[in-house]
Formats: sequence, C-alpha cells, structure tokens
Amino acid sequence: MSPAASSAPGGPGVTAARGFLAAGIHCGVKRQRRDLGLLWSEAPANAAAMFTTNQVQAAPVRYCRRVLGEGPVRAIVVNSGNANACTGTAGDAAAEGMALAAAAALGLPSDQVLVASTGVIGIPLPIEPIEAGLPRAAGVLSSDGGAFARAILTTDAGPKTAATTLELGGTTLRIGGTAKGAGMIHPNMATMLAFLCTDARVPVPALRQALREAVAASFNRISVDGDTSTNDSVFLLANGCAGGAPITGGAELARFTAALSELCQDLALQIVRDGEGATRLVEIRVGGAASDEDARLAAHSVGTSLLVKTMLWGGEPNWGRVLAALGRAGIALDPDRIALDFGPVPAVRGGLGVPGSGEAAARALRAAEVAIHIDLGLGAGAAGLWTCDLNPEYVRINGSYLS
Amino acid sequence: MSPAASSAPGGPGVTAARGFLAAGIHCGVKRQRRDLGLLWSEAPANAAAMFTTNQVQAAPVRYCRRVLGEGPVRAIVVNSGNANACTGTAGDAAAEGMALAAAAALGLPSDQVLVASTGVIGIPLPIEPIEAGLPRAAGVLSSDGGAFARAILTTDAGPKTAATTLELGGTTLRIGGTAKGAGMIHPNMATMLAFLCTDARVPVPALRQALREAVAASFNRISVDGDTSTNDSVFLLANGCAGGAPITGGAELARFTAALSELCQDLALQIVRDGEGATRLVEIRVGGAASDEDARLAAHSVGTSLLVKTMLWGGEPNWGRVLAALGRAGIALDPDRIALDFGPVPAVRGGLGVPGSGEAAARALRAAEVAIHIDLGLGAGAAGLWTCDLNPEYVRINGSYLS
Repeated sequence: MSPAASSAPGGPGVTAARGFLAAGIHCGVKRQRRDLGLLWSEAPANAAAMFTTNQVQAAPVRYCRRVLGEGPVRAIVVNSGNANACTGTAGDAAAEGMALAAAAALGLPSDQVLVASTGVIGIPLPIEPIEAGLPRAAGVLSSDGGAFARAILTTDAGPKTAATTLELGGTTLRIGGTAKGAGMIHPNMATMLAFLCTDARVPVPALRQALREAVAASFNRISVDGDTSTNDSVFLLANGCAGGAPITGGAELARFTAALSELCQDLALQIVRDGEGATRLVEIRVGGAASDEDARLAAHSVGTSLLVKTMLWGGEPNWGRVLAALGRAGIALDPDRIALDFGPVPAVRGGLGVPGSGEAAARALRAAEVAIHIDLGLGAGAAGLWTCDLNPEYVRINGSYLS
Repeated sequence: MSPAASSAPGGPGVTAARGFLAAGIHCGVKRQRRDLGLLWSEAPANAAAMFTTNQVQAAPVRYCRRVLGEGPVRAIVVNSGNANACTGTAGDAAAEGMALAAAAALGLPSDQVLVASTGVIGIPLPIEPIEAGLPRAAGVLSSDGGAFARAILTTDAGPKTAATTLELGGTTLRIGGTAKGAGMIHPNMATMLAFLCTDARVPVPALRQALREAVAASFNRISVDGDTSTNDSVFLLANGCAGGAPITGGAELARFTAALSELCQDLALQIVRDGEGATRLVEIRVGGAASDEDARLAAHSVGTSLLVKTMLWGGEPNWGRVLAALGRAGIALDPDRIALDFGPVPAVRGGLGVPGSGEAAARALRAAEVAIHIDLGLGAGAAGLWTCDLNPEYVRINGSYLS
C-alpha cells in the first residue's frame, strides 16, 4: 500500500511529460482561491476518458461524451467551485461556452478542447468569469503543474500529483497526473477528477484499453461512501512528444499499462488519505472467492458497511460485523469456511473467532494503515478495495456543507 | 407517519391477545439487566416466521428454520446480551439447549418451542444461566407483557409494544406485539426481533401470507444503515383463543392483514425513532417510477446514501445529493423529469432547482419528522422507506462498542 516512489504531491503532475503546459488561476467562480485550470498540449494528443456511471450526469460530462471521438485533443479546461450539474440546457450551453472560450484563447478548433467542472450541484455556472479568465490562463501556461493542481481542488486538503517514467525500446516515456477528490472526508463534493498526460505515442484504441485497465486497478478500487458523483471523470492524453514507435499492443502496451496503473494507484491512495477526518487507510483484500466478481462484491459490501467503517474508526476488532457484511453481499458463501486476518493477526478461522486474538487484533487495527484479509475458502477469485474509517468529523463536515 | 392509536410503549404487547402469558427475568447473560424472555400460549398456536436474508445466520435462526413447520407452537424463549451467532456447532447445541430447557420448564415437547437471541456476535453463548433461569421464568408467567418487552432489549432506549383489536364476524380479535431494535443509532446490535401474538384462528398458510405482507409494509420499509443482521426474526403466533370462524382468505384475511400491518408499522416506527442519536425521522416516498421495484430501489438508494443521511442531520436542502443517489440506483430514469419536495416545499421540478425554494425547504427539512417526496415522472410505480439522519453520535456509539 505504500505510494509509488514517483509520488510527489506538489510536483509537476500533468506537466511531467514533454509537451504539456498548464495554468491555474483565480477567475471568480470561488471567492478567493484558484478556480480555473487549463491544460495544453503543444502537439495534437490522442485522448481517452472515462466518466461517472451515475445516470444524473453533469453538463461537462455530457459535453465530453458528445465531442470525444478518435480525433486529436489539444486542451482541457476545468473549473472548481461549481459542478455545473443539474443545471439543464443552460448548463449545457455553459459547458460548451467554456470549450469555446478556451479554444478562442488558445487558437484551437473547439472540438479539440475538453471540459470538466467540480463543486456545488444545482447552481447555474457563472460563465462570464470563466470567459474573462481564460485568455489570462492561456497567457500563463507553463511547465509548472502546481497551479493547475491547486485550481481543481474543492475541499481537498491539498494537491495530488504523481509522475513516473519508463524505458521502452530505447525511448524514455513520461507519464504525469493530477487528481482531485476527498471523497472520504468531504464527499459533499465527492467528485473525483483525474488528468493524466503522457508523451508516449499510443493510438486511441490502445490508449482506451490502457486507461480502462488502470482505472479498474486504482480509482475503481477506492471506496469512501458508496456514492458516485455526477461529475467523476478521468482523462488521459498522449501527445507522442517522446517519439519512438507507437505502442499498439503486446508487451509494450502491457508495460505502459502497468506504469499507468501504478501512477493511478498512487493518485487514488492520495485521495483516500486526504482530509483530517480520515484517521485510517484500510485495504480490504478478499481471496478464495468463487469468482473475481464475487470477491469484488464481497470487498465492496465490507468496505461500504457503516458498521465496519465505524469499527475501523473505533479500532475494536468486531469481526462479526465483517462476517455480517459478507453474508449480505449476495455471493456464493459458506460461513464455516471464512478466514479473516486483521493485519498479521488471525482473527477468524472456519467462521469462528480465534480464541485470545482480541488484543493483538485491536493493536493491528489501530495502525494508521491496515489490511483486512478475508479468505472465503471457495475458489481462486480475488479482489481488493481501499477504504477509510467513518468518524464523527466526516458527519460534521458533510452535515453542515451545502453542495 | 403518526403511530397508530393503539400504540402503547410499555403496554401489554405480546400478552394483549387472549391466552398468551409472558415473563422477563435476569438470568446472568448480561451483568444486571433482564436478559431472558419467555412467551407462552395456553393453547397450541399456529406459527409463521420470517428470518434474516443474511447468509451468515445465527444458531437460533438456523434452529427455528429447522423445526418450524405446520405443527403447533406453544412457546418462544429469547435471550439478550449474546446473539449466539458465528458460534459454530457449539452455538447450534446452545440454541437447541435453550429450547429443551424451556420445554422442560413448561412441560412441552421441544419441537413446540422456538428460540431467538440478540446481542454480541462471535462469543459462545453461556447456556447454564439460561437453563437455570428458565424454570424461574416459567414460574412468573403473567398477563403483563412489560417484563418480556424489557428482557429482549440490547441498546434500545426503551421497550416497544403495540396492540390492536378488530371485529370480524361478530368476534373481537386482538393482536399484540413487542419488538426490539435500535438499528439507526445502535446498529452494533442491529438485530431486529419482533414477537406478534393474536387470538384469531388463522390456518398456517393464511398466517404466513399475512405475515409476509405485513413485514413488507413495515419492517422491510425501515432502513437505518443498510446492514442486515445475522439474527433478524419476526414471529407470529395465532392461538385461536378468541374463537370464531377460521380466517382462511378473502375479505377476512385482508382485514386481518391490514390490522397486522398497521401494528407492525407502529412497531417499525418505534424502532426508527429509538435512540438519542437519531434526531430526525424521515419518510422517503417515491412515485412515478417505471415499476414498484424501481421505486423501491430508488427509495433504498436515497435512504441509505451517506450524503443524504448527513444532509438530513445538517438540515440543508442539498437536493443534488438526492438526485445523485437516484442516478446510481440502477433504475429507469430521466433526470429532466424528476420532481422533489422537502415536506410541502417544491425544491426540484424538471430536474432543476426551484428558484428561491432554499429557505423554505431548509425549514421543512429541520422538522423532527419530514417526508421527502420524489416523483420520477415515468410511470405509476411507488414505494416508501422510513429512515433517519446520520449524525456524529451514531458514529461515536458504534465506533466504541464491541459487538
């Protein structure tokens, strides 16, 4: 669960790869803090993206779904402070207006610009400050990705960036990324956004496949409160500025995907760790399931159980709550075969508590980072999920904030 | 949402109907408080029961499933303080031991005795105090159901009883009931138990049908934290002591079922209201869904969303959270058709916020009891769910309690 060595919160992030510049300014959607980010590629980039599965989708998500195809992308504009969600046709016009304004400021066709928003839901997005701010943002594009990383934040405790390199066929490839999201502690703005940039040459189909696999192994393995946002989006741009042969499949694509996955896991764990309220990072690992899908359902049922999450806060090894969560996961299950470890401490064997394990299990559970291993004893299916504790601070923050 | 007029917390409950006696004593499973309840029918009773759908089932649930058939039941024995769940074959033996001891104390065949348990999970049930206590409990059986109602409690704030009568074919029929459960505030012992007794003559098939319908309209419409317990059980005994013609179907069974449903709703709302931590009782009503099942899924998604439940505590009308919960319910949905009212205040129409509704909606949301009406605008499907707010007290209690 340790972050990749390439992790560098506050590092270059989206500008780590060659040919990408970024900016982050205050334009006036928020009162004071940076609220407008602009990402630009000096060369036409292949693009892939994944969006929220929520049926209530924000205007920028609808806009990107409409314009994103096989064609090149040169820029992404993103605002924080307002999600432009549940805002009707005016919201659609505002999303398109953001793209048009960015395209004008950068001298691009508007279909080469993608958009994203994060912030409060149901309030009309004020487009004027964004239109006024974009020429200014375009004027301060630089290879320092820090301002962009800060401009996309809402209630995050801090920016989340990561970068990595890999050698492929004698070429050094770079991947950088920035994410926002503090789902566990500030899910009133639960939106998760991630912007990933690489200078590798990757055709669109391979790029999509790599992104799908990397997201499945990272952002889709974190769970905070089970709620999915109207705005969740992950973007991946590949501008080919590193040169080298195109990565179309085989071992090259596998290595690229592995590096991308590691980078995304790094960002995902930064999201889970974010916020004062989260006191504990917990990995739920399920093995021995009848299938990988059963294991995924089991990990999800455990990782989203209120009773388990309050237990993770309190630090008492109430393993009965874990077994009860497994029992309602809707999977193949034989309670008498369940084994469960809190960290290195065997707490359940054959569905029964291990006598005398309580104190050691409690100590294991009270670490800042802890893994809960579950073996269902049925097959070879396996899955994992990162989550965090549920604590009074979470409730206080989310109960008092209008979003 | 007002309780039925027959509601009488602390009233006779299980002994309201003729021919039922009950007792509740302290036997030693708990340190001090009453922990052993005994319910007895002077005449052989037809019995129906419904149990948790959790695959991890406590020993008493497994025992009842095994012995409960078409034959008569004369008694139910229940302990609190220990759930006898995740206790293996020793737990099965203890559940059977409880039935045997009760049968011996009452001079009954053991297959006429059902058992239930509630309390901590995963700790062996000490059978000796129960065996020693049962003759004493049998000796103090009386028509006062209050001691029984208290003996089945765990972290409940108080006993939950209700009683009602109905005239059918010139006969006055009585139904009484007692429940325990404080799922919303103390779900560390989330178990919901209910004991329903009637002096009506109802054959087993009709009794099962009535119970199924009543539970669907009551206990299955309350949601606290989405967790289902290993021990949840609802029992219904009909001993025929009122005389009259058997209720086998038609208008008679419909009227009996309606009365039973109202009684169960009364008890279910007492459960939702229980506990200091719950500050607000909330009814989620969904209409206009493509089907009743879609409406049920929608109500469940909204009523179990952490973001919605923290909103219910904070009292801010963040309707975007409700729409986001609808969007991930996995149902037929057209966001542009959604209408939403907080109490009497229209907050969303056509998927958009109603301008200027914020303050009135906030006032409505801050009432002790509030209804959230959602119209999906698609069809005639409807469903409802009662829930409560999520607040720091819930987390504190559940984080610090070993169960």
